Amino acid sequence: MNDFTFQNPTKIIFGKTSMAHLRSEVETIGKKVLLTYGGGSIKKNGLYTKIIKNLEGFEIKEFGGIEPNPRVETIRKAVKDCRDFDPDLIVAVGGGSVVDGSKLLAASLHDDGYPWDFLVELEAEPRRYVPLAVILTLSATGSEMNSGAVITKWETNEKPFFTRDETYPKFSILDPQNTYSVPKDQTAYGVIDAYSHVLEQYINTTKDAPLLDRFSEAILLTLIENGEIALKDPTNYEARANIMISATMALNGVISMGVGEDWATHVIEHEFSAFYDIPHGAGLAIITPRWMQAVKTQKADKLAQYGERVWKLTGTKERIVEGAIKKTHDFFKSLGIKMSFTEWQIDDRHFKKMLNRFAQTKLGEIPLSELQLQEIITSSVVSMY
Amino acid sequence: MNDFTFQNPTKIIFGKTSMAHLRSEVETIGKKVLLTYGGGSIKKNGLYTKIIKNLEGFEIKEFGGIEPNPRVETIRKAVKDCRDFDPDLIVAVGGGSVVDGSKLLAASLHDDGYPWDFLVELEAEPRRYVPLAVILTLSATGSEMNSGAVITKWETNEKPFFTRDETYPKFSILDPQNTYSVPKDQTAYGVIDAYSHVLEQYINTTKDAPLLDRFSEAILLTLIENGEIALKDPTNYEARANIMISATMALNGVISMGVGEDWATHVIEHEFSAFYDIPHGAGLAIITPRWMQAVKTQKADKLAQYGERVWKLTGTKERIVEGAIKKTHDFFKSLGIKMSFTEWQIDDRHFKKMLNRFAQTKLGEIPLSELQLQEIITSSVVSMY
Repeated sequence: MNDFTFQNPTKIIFGKTSMAHLRSEVETIGKKVLLTYGGGSIKKNGLYTKIIKNLEGFEIKEFGGIEPNPRVETIRKAVKDCRDFDPDLIVAVGGGSVVDGSKLLAASLHDDGYPWDFLVELEAEPRRYVPLAVILTLSATGSEMNSGAVITKWETNEKPFFTRDETYPKFSILDPQNTYSVPKDQTAYGVIDAYSHVLEQYINTTKDAPLLDRFSEAILLTLIENGEIALKDPTNYEARANIMISATMALNGVISMGVGEDWATHVIEHEFSAFYDIPHGAGLAIITPRWMQAVKTQKADKLAQYGERVWKLTGTKERIVEGAIKKTHDFFKSLGIKMSFTEWQIDDRHFKKMLNRFAQTKLGEIPLSELQLQEIITSSVVSMY
Repeated sequence: MNDFTFQNPTKIIFGKTSMAHLRSEVETIGKKVLLTYGGGSIKKNGLYTKIIKNLEGFEIKEFGGIEPNPRVETIRKAVKDCRDFDPDLIVAVGGGSVVDGSKLLAASLHDDGYPWDFLVELEAEPRRYVPLAVILTLSATGSEMNSGAVITKWETNEKPFFTRDETYPKFSILDPQNTYSVPKDQTAYGVIDAYSHVLEQYINTTKDAPLLDRFSEAILLTLIENGEIALKDPTNYEARANIMISATMALNGVISMGVGEDWATHVIEHEFSAFYDIPHGAGLAIITPRWMQAVKTQKADKLAQYGERVWKLTGTKERIVEGAIKKTHDFFKSLGIKMSFTEWQIDDRHFKKMLNRFAQTKLGEIPLSELQLQEIITSSVVSMY
């Protein structure tokens, strides 16, 4: 086990009765609430009305239209629109994109530069952070219980990550019922995103971290068991609840205690999303098994453990590793996911540019070689099996 | 899964380099440090000197002598001795007893009544809490990452529990090396205490909490694997580290998310400790398998899952449950533990008084009947196998 520091101050309010806590939680923070959301699905499914009713008497301003793969351009607009309102609290209602965008907004509302400059390029510190809270409507990114955000800068095809201690949500309301209306493809992408988060922290070369390994396996098994149920029966409370708590635990710092982390799959996928604007979960599904192929010798021990414990495979180590990769691929496919970029009509026109960018960074726990990167990226347009 | 709220603000600093963070962490809180500890083993093993060196320049006062099963009488003395010093921070150096005692001290230092009155009897709120930090020297109670404490009032043979949001440690330094000198029996009691904490939250009747079940099983398996190693090889870093992180995760709120809890075993053991002054872990080892026997019909499903997943038992459900109880008993015994109270020279002179007390409370997730309680207590002086 490696040395580590862990602290996560976010309050999680989970379950069927969780929305009833909204008012009292907001009251402890302030009176002026900036409500942020995405494309407006919360107005169709009744959640918006419920929130407004809950917050009667509070001064409310809204900023909608935070898109999937949230863009710095949108957050710039939000800063301009909402600074004068000077909210005591931002309540982000949505999935990871709305939450991530709202984190950047919380960090940049009171600064004069554009948010990008402060948080990403100059690495300067904001003057003041606005407290953030979350009402989660999609189980996927874990952003509801961590301090990180991924923001897209469309003009330069960049999709970097930022994190600050101050951007942990003060509280997050997790009502699985608020995910009942999530469509099939988004449900599947969410399961895959959470699954990939676990793999990034689990398929490592750390020795002797048996507790953390088992925690990771616990999440993977729970996602496998419940993903298909939620697709077939979208209002199955237990399946939605199990996916929701799994996605939250997948990226709140617990399973990374004392272990090596990888994150190559995520960084590679972010490049695909930034160049081709495909959903994050869709890209992860395609990259993940190809990344496993590329690192199968270096990470053979953990991939074999994954095959044995999660997929109950037996046989030689080599066969278990190959089987584990195929099982991962087939699990994603069983969720109705396209398993090569060709199915997304993506060609290789940006591949060279992407590879050039990667050449300047070290990707992965054991940094990927140029050859490994090339393998992963070029194989992504070809079917694996 | 049941609805739940989770928040745990404690910062965990874990590993071989964790002691190096002490100074900078204390600096963020204040200048006057009250150091609390137990019987003085930290002066023998060099930890005391290391801490004093680390805190050079800070104003330090000490209060030693907080005993196992910490007593309200001792904390009253600490209040009297230390109030005028008016510390900015209490740093508790020790195991669960020192931490628990220091929590009560942190809560009562600035009040005029005795700590007992404020926290337990009158349920009044303290005027002010002193921030608390921990340097852990024994893996067992989980008190380093929760807000609870168990205090003994010897004059009335009571051992109640208190908890306040303000008594979460600000930070806890967990260096497995600081547990190298823990003697065998204390190491075993610690493993058993953590194991029992998991069982209290795992052997429940909650349906559909697969993630939390697996987290619990992960801790149990890790404790089983590492307990014996730590006994045989006390300076085995990995074994000490695995036990330490397991004990912390066993009682920090994670594995109780959304599930029913029991705690009958703990309450029954606290009575034994309060009447006969035996170590908490020693009592838990004896009570636990007898409690399992008493609830084996009501909790058959989870006990069978426990037998299958943790002990790899197969066969009929009934046989798996019986096997799981015996495996639990034998695991504790393999750690060198006395498995009946007769071996502790304990007779039944207080049993009637204990049973009378229990008659007034509801113990357990499904409250134990008088007959069940009687079974557990009277069988504790007889060998099980």
